[in-house]
Amino acid sequence: MSLTPDYRPAELAPQHDNFGVDWVVHYQFDDIEPSKAIEEFESLIHDLHEAHLETQVRHGHGASLLVFIRVPRLHLGSLVYQSRIKDWLYGIIHEIPAGDDDTIADAETPAEALRSVYHAVTWKKELGGAHITPKHRKWKNIASAFPLHDQEANAELLRKWSKTVLLTAEDLDAIRALFGEKVAFYFAFIQSYSSFLVFPAVWGALTWWYLGPYSVTFAVGNCLWAMVFVEYWKIREKDLSLRWEVKGVGALKVTRTQYVWEKEVKDRITGQTVQVFSPYRQFLRQLLLVPFASVAAAALGGLIVITFAMEVFISEVYTGSFQGYLEFLPTVVFSLFLPSITGLLNSIATRLTKYENYRTQDQYDLAQTAKQFVMHFITAFLPTVLTAFVYVPFGATIVPYLDVAHLRSEPAKNPLDFQVDPSRLQQEVIYLTLTGQVLDFLGEIVYPYVKGIVWQKWRDYQSKKEAVEHRKRAASHATNNLLFDEPDESAFLSRVRREADADEYNVHEDTLEMCVQFGYLTLFGTSWPLVALGFLVNNWLELRGDFFKLSHECQRPPPIRSDSIGPSLQGLEVLTWLGTLSTAAIVYLYRGGMAEIRASSFLLTILVAEWAYLAMQFAVSTGLSKIMASVLRREGAKRYAMRKGYLEVAQGQGQGQGRGGSPKGSNGKLRVRFRDRVSVYTSATDPPSPQSDDVLREASLDSERRFWTGSAVEDGVRIIRALGRSGEDSKGEKEM
Amino acid sequence: MSLTPDYRPAELAPQHDNFGVDWVVHYQFDDIEPSKAIEEFESLIHDLHEAHLETQVRHGHGASLLVFIRVPRLHLGSLVYQSRIKDWLYGIIHEIPAGDDDTIADAETPAEALRSVYHAVTWKKELGGAHITPKHRKWKNIASAFPLHDQEANAELLRKWSKTVLLTAEDLDAIRALFGEKVAFYFAFIQSYSSFLVFPAVWGALTWWYLGPYSVTFAVGNCLWAMVFVEYWKIREKDLSLRWEVKGVGALKVTRTQYVWEKEVKDRITGQTVQVFSPYRQFLRQLLLVPFASVAAAALGGLIVITFAMEVFISEVYTGSFQGYLEFLPTVVFSLFLPSITGLLNSIATRLTKYENYRTQDQYDLAQTAKQFVMHFITAFLPTVLTAFVYVPFGATIVPYLDVAHLRSEPAKNPLDFQVDPSRLQQEVIYLTLTGQVLDFLGEIVYPYVKGIVWQKWRDYQSKKEAVEHRKRAASHATNNLLFDEPDESAFLSRVRREADADEYNVHEDTLEMCVQFGYLTLFGTSWPLVALGFLVNNWLELRGDFFKLSHECQRPPPIRSDSIGPSLQGLEVLTWLGTLSTAAIVYLYRGGMAEIRASSFLLTILVAEWAYLAMQFAVSTGLSKIMASVLRREGAKRYAMRKGYLEVAQGQGQGQGRGGSPKGSNGKLRVRFRDRVSVYTSATDPPSPQSDDVLREASLDSERRFWTGSAVEDGVRIIRALGRSGEDSKGEKEM
Repeated sequence: MSLTPDYRPAELAPQHDNFGVDWVVHYQFDDIEPSKAIEEFESLIHDLHEAHLETQVRHGHGASLLVFIRVPRLHLGSLVYQSRIKDWLYGIIHEIPAGDDDTIADAETPAEALRSVYHAVTWKKELGGAHITPKHRKWKNIASAFPLHDQEANAELLRKWSKTVLLTAEDLDAIRALFGEKVAFYFAFIQSYSSFLVFPAVWGALTWWYLGPYSVTFAVGNCLWAMVFVEYWKIREKDLSLRWEVKGVGALKVTRTQYVWEKEVKDRITGQTVQVFSPYRQFLRQLLLVPFASVAAAALGGLIVITFAMEVFISEVYTGSFQGYLEFLPTVVFSLFLPSITGLLNSIATRLTKYENYRTQDQYDLAQTAKQFVMHFITAFLPTVLTAFVYVPFGATIVPYLDVAHLRSEPAKNPLDFQVDPSRLQQEVIYLTLTGQVLDFLGEIVYPYVKGIVWQKWRDYQSKKEAVEHRKRAASHATNNLLFDEPDESAFLSRVRREADADEYNVHEDTLEMCVQFGYLTLFGTSWPLVALGFLVNNWLELRGDFFKLSHECQRPPPIRSDSIGPSLQGLEVLTWLGTLSTAAIVYLYRGGMAEIRASSFLLTILVAEWAYLAMQFAVSTGLSKIMASVLRREGAKRYAMRKGYLEVAQGQGQGQGRGGSPKGSNGKLRVRFRDRVSVYTSATDPPSPQSDDVLREASLDSERRFWTGSAVEDGVRIIRALGRSGEDSKGEKEM
Repeated sequence: MSLTPDYRPAELAPQHDNFGVDWVVHYQFDDIEPSKAIEEFESLIHDLHEAHLETQVRHGHGASLLVFIRVPRLHLGSLVYQSRIKDWLYGIIHEIPAGDDDTIADAETPAEALRSVYHAVTWKKELGGAHITPKHRKWKNIASAFPLHDQEANAELLRKWSKTVLLTAEDLDAIRALFGEKVAFYFAFIQSYSSFLVFPAVWGALTWWYLGPYSVTFAVGNCLWAMVFVEYWKIREKDLSLRWEVKGVGALKVTRTQYVWEKEVKDRITGQTVQVFSPYRQFLRQLLLVPFASVAAAALGGLIVITFAMEVFISEVYTGSFQGYLEFLPTVVFSLFLPSITGLLNSIATRLTKYENYRTQDQYDLAQTAKQFVMHFITAFLPTVLTAFVYVPFGATIVPYLDVAHLRSEPAKNPLDFQVDPSRLQQEVIYLTLTGQVLDFLGEIVYPYVKGIVWQKWRDYQSKKEAVEHRKRAASHATNNLLFDEPDESAFLSRVRREADADEYNVHEDTLEMCVQFGYLTLFGTSWPLVALGFLVNNWLELRGDFFKLSHECQRPPPIRSDSIGPSLQGLEVLTWLGTLSTAAIVYLYRGGMAEIRASSFLLTILVAEWAYLAMQFAVSTGLSKIMASVLRREGAKRYAMRKGYLEVAQGQGQGQGRGGSPKGSNGKLRVRFRDRVSVYTSATDPPSPQSDDVLREASLDSERRFWTGSAVEDGVRIIRALGRSGEDSKGEKEM
């Protein structure tokens, strides 16, 4: 891999700030009896030990335990090797990993190692895991299970990016090394998208200056740009999935616990036992999406139309008292209703997705996200669509009819005297671009940050109070020691407690946000061509803000693999298509100032735009895939090289050489080195460079050793007794 | 492979009727000096011998030589093995062929063996071939080079199909075994397409009976059917390409002699030296297709429009003398002009394709065929399109203007009194379906057959006359022997001479014909729903007729591999799309009898049809690919099984087992058995069954042995001298 091995930041101090902890399980027992809690806790530790995991325990905030998990290095190496073998079997990688059943391998990146830890914690017992599923069934009292952040590396990346404009390929590799491919794909996407935004930004500024809004020149350029970007991204995605060796990774994902199958079939070719659920029945179930989408569109659309109509009514027709205040009423009502309606729709969507019965978690997530996207698109775009294609063109005809109660002071003098301001569309787009993006940023990143700090302060105050209380009570010396952090652990533990309270990072939400932005640009960009310039500036901040959120405000996500940005890609394609139609319609309607609009020429415009889209889309995708063919041929080349090498080994060296393993030659057991001096910037095979901070290192190793001594079961039971008792004593206080 | 080994037709007699000949080169020397001819001929034999090929020579029709080529069985086996290794390297097959450099392999099918022979004859000398390129450069006097038909197998297949309705998977495998995948894909296509035709045939008959033409019910069903068929075929194609192990076979094809490259680059990954021509420049050159298509469309379209206008003018406006005869004049003139215009366009197309500079012959053929398809579609569909969308709807408005010279007896009484008959579209469609298909069949299969027989008679008469003449002249006994066929060779040689005169089989033409038929159905089917019924009947005959043509009227094509029906697939997609629009337009225009047509509602109809097409196309392709996912997963399963097996061998048996070859176990050198008792219905590893016709076999082996004795060079030079001299004597006679 191309993690540049020669680039070593000065900050590359030994990273022992995580005390060798691989995974943390946050167990909460404030809702249940201590005896039940002890039983569950013992069972948890038992399951973890059975899966060959080492454990340690400390108390969390309130009535909760933090179970620290460490995978013995030899076991981890073996897991990494087994995972690679599986990759090779499923054709994800083309070079057979050298070794045999006892081989232990060095993880190439922290993410690879953490993925194996993740599997060891979550996979079913048949597959060798501990089957810890937070918030599910047996483990519904486990609030979360997560790896710890690598603070040094995160800070280093953020510091580096604050000084640069573009992310390099190495930066993306670093994100991949820290957070896995799924997250890295999002950053690669926002990076590509933002770089591409330069064209519409410049083009928009130029046409805006010389031609004003609604110019055909900008419209054509913008639509072509959108097509080129989407086709480029498709290829880029394949390129990255080859670079990161995750192409087709969906095939090897394990079956969900919830998967229901009709029969088990022995595959004729592979000899594996496959659990089969009729794809025909699954497709029939998926067809339920059509009524669901209709209902969702009707519900959300109805709400939006009513709000819109009320707003227009109040601002244009109603002239009674409090008009100035009442104008905001519809939006307020809408905002109040929206969460419960989307909540209802979401729960229907979840039930539908469950009913669709996907085999892997990946497929399940995709299906669920796709449904959420549909809903999100409706709420994001429908208001502006209504403004652009209903309110402004037909407002003069429709609005007078809204005056059903004849509230207007001069009733129905002449319906034609009502004038709609055509610049309303532009105003809305400007709002969305400037104000909207800033507000989003504040709401998404700044507000949670502030909230987090305040929450932390409150927690600190709370725990001090609790500490005083505990001190008052009679408890054994051993228990007391457990309830107060060791001085050298204290900083670490308070960080872990903060991370345990943090939100889970949802990469789909961030991707969706970018898709919505792309949608605004393609659908309505032509009414205010400067829109792309605003987005470009926003995205510089957005990328860093998202990384800040990911690394400081969220739990470190499990490094899941993926070979695409998921359903967003289809969303982008649909938006490009709709964008062409919408742009054509807006240019036709608004260019002449609503003067001569004829249905036939309007329809002809749309039809021509549609055909132009199809033709250009074909040309662009063909052209790009031809020009970038070398990227896509790389997979074939890799396979060829692998087979050629194998053939040479097999034929050249002939008998007795044995095993015919990797042509690059293996060297037996590899030393496992992970989290002792591994960095996202160093490839794992570099020898550790001699450094002068050995003393510091020894000291931190010491605390680490101390951290891992002691029996997790005993300590945990003591803490549960101590805190659980206190929980029973002061129910009201603890639940704050 | 699934060539059912237990099915053995009674006709499985020893197939020694080809005298062990693998390939025939037809060398003509009637245009050049005998001395030059001798030089070329000697060089030809030298090149063939250098490529380890055995040769024999006999005289052909007129001043020509038939050079018979036989590949020594051991050499052939080695070629077959090398070819399989190459397949494996390029990822076409997933199981490594067992063996080492000296392995000789048994060809699985006659086609596989013939493909290796084809490579040995045509590949460049660097690749180990003889580089014989008929009609090109050095070898422009070689009229053709071809393998001989397997008459028994052909007759057997034809006999079997005359009694059945549908071809089975085994029949397709048999075609593949005889003629290679490219031809087999065509037959698989016509087979799938004809089976699918049952639905529109029944649906059409029902709706025709109850609802008449232009019914929305039929229109919707027909459009959906077309989509389902195209999407089905895409999956079927992948399925077949996996079954026949040709998926992605385009990647390993050799570079064309004419390919021009800019630089040679050593591939970073594979280490191969790759010849690179900038894909960007190639794409720019390909963009020339746009002006070309415009010119072709304008030229052909203009010709068709003019013809059409003249025809209308004469039949509707002109009332002068000879009107009855003059009506045919435009069509006659059109037919006279068409060949020279298409000829011109074809030559432009060829130059364009050459300029586009494709690396492999496959890509070149595809690009050339695609251009021909565009031209063919224009000539096939434009006349009916004009009738449907210009003449009938606007005829009443346009036709009076055609009367520029005021030829009509009652001039411009009232333009509106001219009435266009709306049933003209229906009449045209009926003509195309019934008469057109029958005429095509006659022209394509019956006429060449009759012509062939007559030509054969003339040849026989001719050669008898020549024989008498030769006998008159003084010539050595040896030469005389060469000019007259041995009695036991005579039947064989006259068959070879007939095959040498036969046409080359062009599979693209047959595929194109089916695409045009599909186009008629989707574009205009709604005006006469019985159209599919006619096509269904026609195709039963067409399939057998095409196989008859292939096996009796054409040279056996080299068994080229391919993993698709080529550009026709894109043609089908475009036709499905256009078909939806056209169907919607026809139903809208013709259903109400041209009464109330409004531009806006017409455009709205088209737009709705377009969107319905996009939505349904998405639904159908998603649904089908989900339902048929198991078909597409097979490739992954095969790879998995291969790797799993390999891993077990490598890890389980460990050291000393050596070479880590195929998990299925190899058994050293395989016996080469080809054309001595190989049949398309038997897998090559079956032991020859003891049969009682050993005597017959011995006799034919005897003639075969005699056939291959004698020096090709000496014999050939003698024949050239004899016939060449006679050629100089009587130039006029020989050129007949």
